[in-house]
Amino acid sequence: MISKSEIALLKSLRFTKYRKTEKKYLVEGKNIVCEAIKKDSIINKVFYTNRFNNLNEQLVSLLKNKYTSKEISEKEMNAISPTKSPSGIAALCNFPKNLLNMEMKKSWLYLDCISDPGNLGTLLRSACWFGINQVAISKGSVDLYNPKVVRSAMGAHFSLSIRKETNIDFFDKKKFIILGGDMNGDEKINLKNFKKNWVLVLGNEAHGISENVREKIDKKISIKKLGTGDSLNVSTSGSILMYLLTKT
Amino acid sequence: MISKSEIALLKSLRFTKYRKTEKKYLVEGKNIVCEAIKKDSIINKVFYTNRFNNLNEQLVSLLKNKYTSKEISEKEMNAISPTKSPSGIAALCNFPKNLLNMEMKKSWLYLDCISDPGNLGTLLRSACWFGINQVAISKGSVDLYNPKVVRSAMGAHFSLSIRKETNIDFFDKKKFIILGGDMNGDEKINLKNFKKNWVLVLGNEAHGISENVREKIDKKISIKKLGTGDSLNVSTSGSILMYLLTKT
Repeated sequence: MISKSEIALLKSLRFTKYRKTEKKYLVEGKNIVCEAIKKDSIINKVFYTNRFNNLNEQLVSLLKNKYTSKEISEKEMNAISPTKSPSGIAALCNFPKNLLNMEMKKSWLYLDCISDPGNLGTLLRSACWFGINQVAISKGSVDLYNPKVVRSAMGAHFSLSIRKETNIDFFDKKKFIILGGDMNGDEKINLKNFKKNWVLVLGNEAHGISENVREKIDKKISIKKLGTGDSLNVSTSGSILMYLLTKT
Repeated sequence: MISKSEIALLKSLRFTKYRKTEKKYLVEGKNIVCEAIKKDSIINKVFYTNRFNNLNEQLVSLLKNKYTSKEISEKEMNAISPTKSPSGIAALCNFPKNLLNMEMKKSWLYLDCISDPGNLGTLLRSACWFGINQVAISKGSVDLYNPKVVRSAMGAHFSLSIRKETNIDFFDKKKFIILGGDMNGDEKINLKNFKKNWVLVLGNEAHGISENVREKIDKKISIKKLGTGDSLNVSTSGSILMYLLTKT
């Protein structure tokens, strides 16, 4: 049982504005909640239904020991969850602390005005998989904590260090080679060139990389077309580039 | 101006049942309509708004010459279009004729119970890009002509030969090597093994490849995890595998 005001607060977190004010977001589903547990201090509160508890007693008992947890009705879960068929578990998560200690070395992903939440989430999930643990996102991208982003990232939010509203000038060109995913880029990615720290830049679904970011790019890279079609989906091409840049 | 009954018919095409009866589907947006033009006899009728016509006179004039075309109001376009913000152009397309002449050679993609429309569409788009022109889809997958599938495939429907409701036994194991995208597969894909015709099998988002399909697989292949996370998105991993299998 939760109060009407708490339901209203949790529902409001579907919108960027309220997430920013509260510095919190809601995650939904067993897999994502399990990922969130691994990161200390990220979970603020847990909500589960009786049905979920019956099917996952061990997990719920662990959650109850560790966090403020509330059993709520199916109706309440439907009200707070941004998904149409909630799985029966949701966690209110804190925004991460300021990322002052992000490593200015190694590999980064820079996402420039990605607008589709599914694409942003999928790119974060891929970055996580390929061990590209530092991501910067430009102004004008879809919000990092949008429920659809969170759902398709499948817990990547808890593993990556993510810097929001970042200008491309954040990267010192003396220290980084800036690579841009581009339709007209080089199709033979010569890995020898990338021993330096690198940033992989991916642009907007419809408009590609913004003009001001494009100016900073040292090298454009591309996936060779063998068949037909205008382009690949940005989360697809971005993930193939991540694969190529990290493979050993 | 279109009649109420035509609006009702076009709206009904959002649902699998009515698409099956009519053997037609609606595509929306300039890029997809432009792809549809390339394929003879696929477009049955075109609908555009005055605003779209003003911005794309040449295209509309070409469409008017080639197909039955109707200027309709913004309100009518909103009523027939499955998208929230229609771009002002839509085309009613015929289902392709029976694919009796599909080549039983070369490379195929077999999609086993893919349930997310965005994933199915993205996989078709990638298959198109990598020149894997023959796709078979199992029973139990999301419908090929679901509006979200059509939108994310970005015209791939018009370039690929796609066989619906196909059993894995369609592929003669003497002629094909059957490769399965699998979390526990081989991470070093030795291209020499794949000189034979091959089929790449990709399974459901939550459950992987079905039991009966799994039995037929000759070799499991996988994308190496360098970081963390439970899995990659199926359209991501599938596209990376398509890249690897087709790269020269």
